[in-house]
Amino acid sequence: MRIEGLVAAIFTPFNENGSLNLAMAPILVEQLVNDGLTGIFVCGTNGEGPNMTIEERMEVAAAFVKAADKKLKVMVHVGHPTIAESQKLAAHAAQIGADAISAVAAFYFKPVSVGNLVNSMAAIAGAAPELPFYYYHIPVLTGVGMDMLEFLRLSEHVIPNLAGIKYTAPTLHEYQSCLQYEGGKYDILYGTDEMLLSAMAVGAKGAIGSTYSFAAPAYLQVMQLFGEGRLEDARQLQYRLVDMVRRFVKYPPLPAQKAIMQMTGLNTGPCRLPLTSLSAEQAAALKTDLEESGFFQMMEAIRSRKYEVGSMK
Amino acid sequence: MRIEGLVAAIFTPFNENGSLNLAMAPILVEQLVNDGLTGIFVCGTNGEGPNMTIEERMEVAAAFVKAADKKLKVMVHVGHPTIAESQKLAAHAAQIGADAISAVAAFYFKPVSVGNLVNSMAAIAGAAPELPFYYYHIPVLTGVGMDMLEFLRLSEHVIPNLAGIKYTAPTLHEYQSCLQYEGGKYDILYGTDEMLLSAMAVGAKGAIGSTYSFAAPAYLQVMQLFGEGRLEDARQLQYRLVDMVRRFVKYPPLPAQKAIMQMTGLNTGPCRLPLTSLSAEQAAALKTDLEESGFFQMMEAIRSRKYEVGSMK
Amino acid sequence: MRIEGLVAAIFTPFNENGSLNLAMAPILVEQLVNDGLTGIFVCGTNGEGPNMTIEERMEVAAAFVKAADKKLKVMVHVGHPTIAESQKLAAHAAQIGADAISAVAAFYFKPVSVGNLVNSMAAIAGAAPELPFYYYHIPVLTGVGMDMLEFLRLSEHVIPNLAGIKYTAPTLHEYQSCLQYEGGKYDILYGTDEMLLSAMAVGAKGAIGSTYSFAAPAYLQVMQLFGEGRLEDARQLQYRLVDMVRRFVKYPPLPAQKAIMQMTGLNTGPCRLPLTSLSAEQAAALKTDLEESGFFQMMEAIRSRKYEVGSMK
Amino acid sequence: MRIEGLVAAIFTPFNENGSLNLAMAPILVEQLVNDGLTGIFVCGTNGEGPNMTIEERMEVAAAFVKAADKKLKVMVHVGHPTIAESQKLAAHAAQIGADAISAVAAFYFKPVSVGNLVNSMAAIAGAAPELPFYYYHIPVLTGVGMDMLEFLRLSEHVIPNLAGIKYTAPTLHEYQSCLQYEGGKYDILYGTDEMLLSAMAVGAKGAIGSTYSFAAPAYLQVMQLFGEGRLEDARQLQYRLVDMVRRFVKYPPLPAQKAIMQMTGLNTGPCRLPLTSLSAEQAAALKTDLEESGFFQMMEAIRSRKYEVGSMK
Repeated sequence: MRIEGLVAAIFTPFNENGSLNLAMAPILVEQLVNDGLTGIFVCGTNGEGPNMTIEERMEVAAAFVKAADKKLKVMVHVGHPTIAESQKLAAHAAQIGADAISAVAAFYFKPVSVGNLVNSMAAIAGAAPELPFYYYHIPVLTGVGMDMLEFLRLSEHVIPNLAGIKYTAPTLHEYQSCLQYEGGKYDILYGTDEMLLSAMAVGAKGAIGSTYSFAAPAYLQVMQLFGEGRLEDARQLQYRLVDMVRRFVKYPPLPAQKAIMQMTGLNTGPCRLPLTSLSAEQAAALKTDLEESGFFQMMEAIRSRKYEVGSMK
Repeated sequence: MRIEGLVAAIFTPFNENGSLNLAMAPILVEQLVNDGLTGIFVCGTNGEGPNMTIEERMEVAAAFVKAADKKLKVMVHVGHPTIAESQKLAAHAAQIGADAISAVAAFYFKPVSVGNLVNSMAAIAGAAPELPFYYYHIPVLTGVGMDMLEFLRLSEHVIPNLAGIKYTAPTLHEYQSCLQYEGGKYDILYGTDEMLLSAMAVGAKGAIGSTYSFAAPAYLQVMQLFGEGRLEDARQLQYRLVDMVRRFVKYPPLPAQKAIMQMTGLNTGPCRLPLTSLSAEQAAALKTDLEESGFFQMMEAIRSRKYEVGSMK
Repeated sequence: MRIEGLVAAIFTPFNENGSLNLAMAPILVEQLVNDGLTGIFVCGTNGEGPNMTIEERMEVAAAFVKAADKKLKVMVHVGHPTIAESQKLAAHAAQIGADAISAVAAFYFKPVSVGNLVNSMAAIAGAAPELPFYYYHIPVLTGVGMDMLEFLRLSEHVIPNLAGIKYTAPTLHEYQSCLQYEGGKYDILYGTDEMLLSAMAVGAKGAIGSTYSFAAPAYLQVMQLFGEGRLEDARQLQYRLVDMVRRFVKYPPLPAQKAIMQMTGLNTGPCRLPLTSLSAEQAAALKTDLEESGFFQMMEAIRSRKYEVGSMK
Repeated sequence: MRIEGLVAAIFTPFNENGSLNLAMAPILVEQLVNDGLTGIFVCGTNGEGPNMTIEERMEVAAAFVKAADKKLKVMVHVGHPTIAESQKLAAHAAQIGADAISAVAAFYFKPVSVGNLVNSMAAIAGAAPELPFYYYHIPVLTGVGMDMLEFLRLSEHVIPNLAGIKYTAPTLHEYQSCLQYEGGKYDILYGTDEMLLSAMAVGAKGAIGSTYSFAAPAYLQVMQLFGEGRLEDARQLQYRLVDMVRRFVKYPPLPAQKAIMQMTGLNTGPCRLPLTSLSAEQAAALKTDLEESGFFQMMEAIRSRKYEVGSMK
């Protein structure tokens, strides 16, 4: 499997009372198709996978596979501290017709060596042997920060369906090593949205991230400018996106992004404990801040193909 | 609720193929009753709660409640990254007649303030309102290291069934503050076995720990010597236990203790990934090391009431 | 060397303009002698050793050796990221007649193994071979958290003048192991004031700490009550001290303690950057808080031998 | 001040007995001039600044200023846990005619806020007001990881001679924000050699690093290829350098690089404690590994302008 372009790490839509609001799935998908995305990553960090029961995760995955209807690739995150639960989720993903699965390392008892991590991931990947498997590397949340090149080396003969890595860390030298491993054998998707341009410089072709849920057209334009050799323009646009992220990370990032979704007309509801939603005051302050930065205006211009790099502050 | 004496954080017995071996439950309970324990803590860290499915955790809890048969108090650990799963486990614990429940903080999305932690724990405790609830404080594993005195203050009016804290950290000044909070309103059980004597010095009356599964009589003797004012003797015996722990923590601690259980004739089987069992060589080396230290001989002497402090190396 | 009782980790007195105010040295010493201390630890963490030049550290050490005049033992902290600077300080300490030296691990390039740490400390200790040397273990500040029992084992034949460890960490099981190493060969001084009673339970006879600069009589009474077997009384008094520390650690601890010194009539001046002194408002709030807790009243009662345990809130 | 191109974070040359070997200074400088460097960074991390006395640091700085003789810009690192020592070093750097100074944050007592860091750096920069000052951001070593954009904002009116930041961290989104702050007001030099290409993608024009001491021509070629829009070629060459770094970081990195210097005929001697030099066996193994990777051959080809991208494995 080889994924180029952008994959949105979607936010799971909840009702105000916290229950699943899967009626939003087709609406979100339609927006993402219009925005030019390649795929969606469901039940991951941004999808609050760890805040849902196994049954809910299956429901959410099924709803998005159905909504995507082959217009978007669907990657289902099946990571869980309990490997047996991950296996259930993996088998279910295969059964409902997902395009790929992905899993973080167990995060209560954490793998203590690369080999231990590989064995743990092999157990999960083996529950859906027909699906491509991506290891989800996100040390800042799991506390598991193994050498990813070594992971590829040791996995190669142990995880037959290993497709690659969802690489969420700023260490682009290691990222580049993984990309170039055995002539590019694996699909290494980049996961830090604010560093997309830098990742492309060392060869990234695909990326998965949360802000692609509401700002993908801008990132796709960065990719296009980069592809055309218009590096300075790409840089200016990337900077606008770095600036946008800086404005929302003053707040808890996941709830802040759900608030931004709401500002764009897509209500994905509140977060679940231990996450808490932004207060109305916080959401209003964030909205004002983003408006003053010209973010929404820029997005509108890009969506209507009227954006000129450098034409706005 | 007020628990005095020792609670064993039991190891969940698995068959060689990794499936539950609940036939061992009554055997383990009988040993623990004979050893003088007050209670058992099931599906916790040592019980590999995070390595079992929800259904398995319920089976294990039910088997131990039945086996305990009121001869031991049963505390069921219901902590989980997903609060809704914790709630299922809590309700189940109430239904099967457990004596108390306990939960760690969510450990993927981690609580970001004491208030946030309190709200998360309130949601769990509220699912079994008739059962005493103990917050399980173990920052080294969860990465959640909030101020526990502040936790008591904020929980007091929010968690009506709060009974206390399973306090697994070496910070005994904070532990003492919690013990003395409002004249000793809450039951603060100590969780670092090697520091039991020090905890008693500041007022500990009860403790929960993994080594109480196989060495409780020695710790109970420490408690008795301490109670009799024979502090130097208590210290010498505690030191023997500190030494025992030092010998097994050269290996991954949980598998090493399952190996020690096996040495004492109680087979609780292998660990589940990402934990791995000791190799035969490692287990043999650990056995030799413990034999040379006189540990098994000491335990036998204590169990047969023939132990004299200072009589062995 | 064997130190029993309490050693005050003194605050270096500065003038308002930040220069040394060594006229305060005899005044501080007199107070500490009256308060019953055994020794002083100069130019350590609380003495802002790392905020002074080498020349200033020598001046401060010399002034306190002179002021102590054999009425108090003087331990000079010579730790520094540069071993050659530590050696200068060590040789100077020997020359001025200090009673012992002590050093933290290098803290820019940090030792990477116990052996590496031992070799580094040997280089320092060797610069004052006639003086007892104490390794200063304070992982929370240096980031160097090696196994201290292994440190003793490896140092034994490499550092002839090793006297022991200033052990500043809450891990009392390891502390006990060090105390009991080879029948108590080394002098292991405890460094977490709030846990003094717990440390005594496992054998501590001496301690070094910052709050002994202004509250030693209360701690000495804890020690006495403990020695008389009045454990419950010792515990209640220790709790008062735990409570006192909780009140000042709401503020940056070192400046807060300098403010408390000032409240007791001993002006040790401001702190140096990057430390900053408490604002007047903060100092006033802390004073009120300590007054309301009865701390000053308790200290006065203890100093005038009128204190009855449990007689005050 | 504005530095473009590469600045070598030079290794301080020591004799076998550990004393300074300043006769090497002109030899190192000559090599670096030939290799096309813009400047040198002396007494920094790689220069083992923290392993030298103040007097030695002054000697080293003076020797390199003299050797550089205006053919290379000389930045003197004056960072130290003691601000007063940093001030001495800063004043000395000005006096000997250095081109700029730089300092890490204090690293025993660490700044606790951006404002506190700014005040600390202002105190140092103020000791050499006529020299450009660069804050040296290296959180992995100092443990001080403040927001660098906020640092620029707060420093702007407090540190008149602030020239920029030596930015040693992989977080390129923040790096880009700093680069673009106020239209590029400050000189933000990148410090992670293996990520140079990614940094250039977001606008880096200058960089400081250790491997530029022995591999600058390859990095300069990366810069040139990038400038010519030959991105794929730049990427392949950068990858060779990523691979080279991976080979030596199996060993302690600083000693390993001194061993590589030696392999290229430039003997900078051993490291000082707590750093330790590679053993002869380690050095031989590293040499073989680098030879097998074609590193030395590539460097020779580049230096003789015979290198063709992609012509070697």
